Amino acid sequence: MTELKNALRRCGICIVFVAFSVVFAHAQTDPLPSWNDTAPKKAIIAFVEKVTKDGGADFVPVDQRIATFDNDGTLWIEQPMYVQLAFMIDRVKELAPKHPEWKTTQPFKGVLDGDMKAVAATGEKGLLQLMAATHAGMTVEQFHKIVTDWLATAQQPKYKSPYTQCVYQPMLELLAYLRANGFKTYIVSGGGVEFMRPWTEKVYGIPPEQVVGSSIKTKFELVDGKPDLMRLPEINFIDDKEGKPVGIIQYIGRRPIAAFGNSDGDQHMLEWTAAGDGPRFMLLVHHTDAEREYAYDRQSSFGKLDKALDEANAKGWTVVDMKADWRTIFPPQ
Amino acid sequence: MTELKNALRRCGICIVFVAFSVVFAHAQTDPLPSWNDTAPKKAIIAFVEKVTKDGGADFVPVDQRIATFDNDGTLWIEQPMYVQLAFMIDRVKELAPKHPEWKTTQPFKGVLDGDMKAVAATGEKGLLQLMAATHAGMTVEQFHKIVTDWLATAQQPKYKSPYTQCVYQPMLELLAYLRANGFKTYIVSGGGVEFMRPWTEKVYGIPPEQVVGSSIKTKFELVDGKPDLMRLPEINFIDDKEGKPVGIIQYIGRRPIAAFGNSDGDQHMLEWTAAGDGPRFMLLVHHTDAEREYAYDRQSSFGKLDKALDEANAKGWTVVDMKADWRTIFPPQ
Repeated sequence: MTELKNALRRCGICIVFVAFSVVFAHAQTDPLPSWNDTAPKKAIIAFVEKVTKDGGADFVPVDQRIATFDNDGTLWIEQPMYVQLAFMIDRVKELAPKHPEWKTTQPFKGVLDGDMKAVAATGEKGLLQLMAATHAGMTVEQFHKIVTDWLATAQQPKYKSPYTQCVYQPMLELLAYLRANGFKTYIVSGGGVEFMRPWTEKVYGIPPEQVVGSSIKTKFELVDGKPDLMRLPEINFIDDKEGKPVGIIQYIGRRPIAAFGNSDGDQHMLEWTAAGDGPRFMLLVHHTDAEREYAYDRQSSFGKLDKALDEANAKGWTVVDMKADWRTIFPPQ
Repeated sequence: MTELKNALRRCGICIVFVAFSVVFAHAQTDPLPSWNDTAPKKAIIAFVEKVTKDGGADFVPVDQRIATFDNDGTLWIEQPMYVQLAFMIDRVKELAPKHPEWKTTQPFKGVLDGDMKAVAATGEKGLLQLMAATHAGMTVEQFHKIVTDWLATAQQPKYKSPYTQCVYQPMLELLAYLRANGFKTYIVSGGGVEFMRPWTEKVYGIPPEQVVGSSIKTKFELVDGKPDLMRLPEINFIDDKEGKPVGIIQYIGRRPIAAFGNSDGDQHMLEWTAAGDGPRFMLLVHHTDAEREYAYDRQSSFGKLDKALDEANAKGWTVVDMKADWRTIFPPQ
């Protein structure tokens, strides 16, 4: 028993020492080093400290600390076009030798000729044909491999870097900071859910089961004699605008307390988040840095930010001015 | 520095002591005390030890330890009828005073008269009418409250207990054992997802975002001037049979390594789980205990177990004989 008591006493000393180290280390470390000390960083830290303060008026239990993030333009680059669109174009080119008829049939001809006007003229029907040809007709696991292989070699045209390096360092820090404070972080994107799931864990620390996105239908069937899930050329769900809150309730089953976006596609998610009880945090990334990234908002084809910007200003949501508020844009190579 | 060194040395002693205590405690504690020492318990423990043995041939990284559980008849009671059906009947009775026309219109008349044959005669159309009248037309959060309030007073007719106490103690232990070994546990049920989410965390330790189920459509709209999600009288997804693997890929995005069910509705989930690479575990609960619970299988209206039982026997999946393999059925009151 004496040995046990001694061990426990040592253990007590040890716990005090460890606790002291943790507190000391915390005071020394800036959780958001790529953010300038401007209003958005202060607002983020104030919110996190408020909801995690045990016994405080605004304390939120860990299980309710749900934070949802748009992907395109919020966590990674969406210019000069959505990454998934670049994937679709490359995929049409790769499959074209097996489809000689595409040389003379829209929307495929337009993609092969780089004539986006002709593609756009085929409307929704054309887009569905492109989706069916490039995203369906394989199992989910086969599609994951196609995406992974493509991302390993494809390059963002301005930076000549893999797309998975064209992610925003300040947002990576924000994700990690929230998780360190008990938040569960989710992606809620208009992009295809299975286009994101193969790489989000490695790049953002967000596992596949915390990715909500648009989807096509899948069907249980035997593939090479084994039960598998085949991707069908049919839309299942569009996770954009009004669809974002619907996707969140479907997958997560509760309202987030914090939501992050950058375009009008995120407006409803932020509105619904804001309308819940208790402390709330809504943030929009405004792309204002033509030199270090791209500058775009109300007129952009990709990531149009217009009505949501007006609402953010009217309601006092946090708006990140990338040029002024972010010290760095991309992670060190 | 000397103080730091001393503290670290003490800390080292402390860690050894704690590690020793953990090993010692582990060796002493049976993680599945409500299971008899028969084949199913041995198979479960062998599987868990195999996939968690670092450096072993069958080691599975934590992020891939996904286990999916059916709910009705696997985690809680499904006799004399599905709990959600009992809820629907009670709900019709509660709402009936506001709908005098129900006294003369099927399927409502049948529900009010206790004439289930008349209800069944209205077929799928009748069931959809009942669903629309009882499950739709309110926000998701309002529906959660209705379910919670009902569960607080409703009683299972045989045991005169709340339904949330008619859950299987051996399965609660299994859920906890898997989670203690790094598994993420999910419900994948043919039941309504929002019928389960309000209580699964408290009862099973499974949070709302780890519940996959059947659903009706929801719509983003203003309710009393605030953005909210309204439940619509329209089926969105049926999470049963072939739908279970589809639901899993949609919500979770990867194939489980272990799956647990009790009826033909779970057959495809178990088949798809079994068809993955690496170690796999498939289990069916066979209700064989007429005295302590109910005995039913191939002819049952609820939880019919026929084809899946044949497949389990043919393929060597684990089958729990409730009477022989479970020491206790329900948690202590």
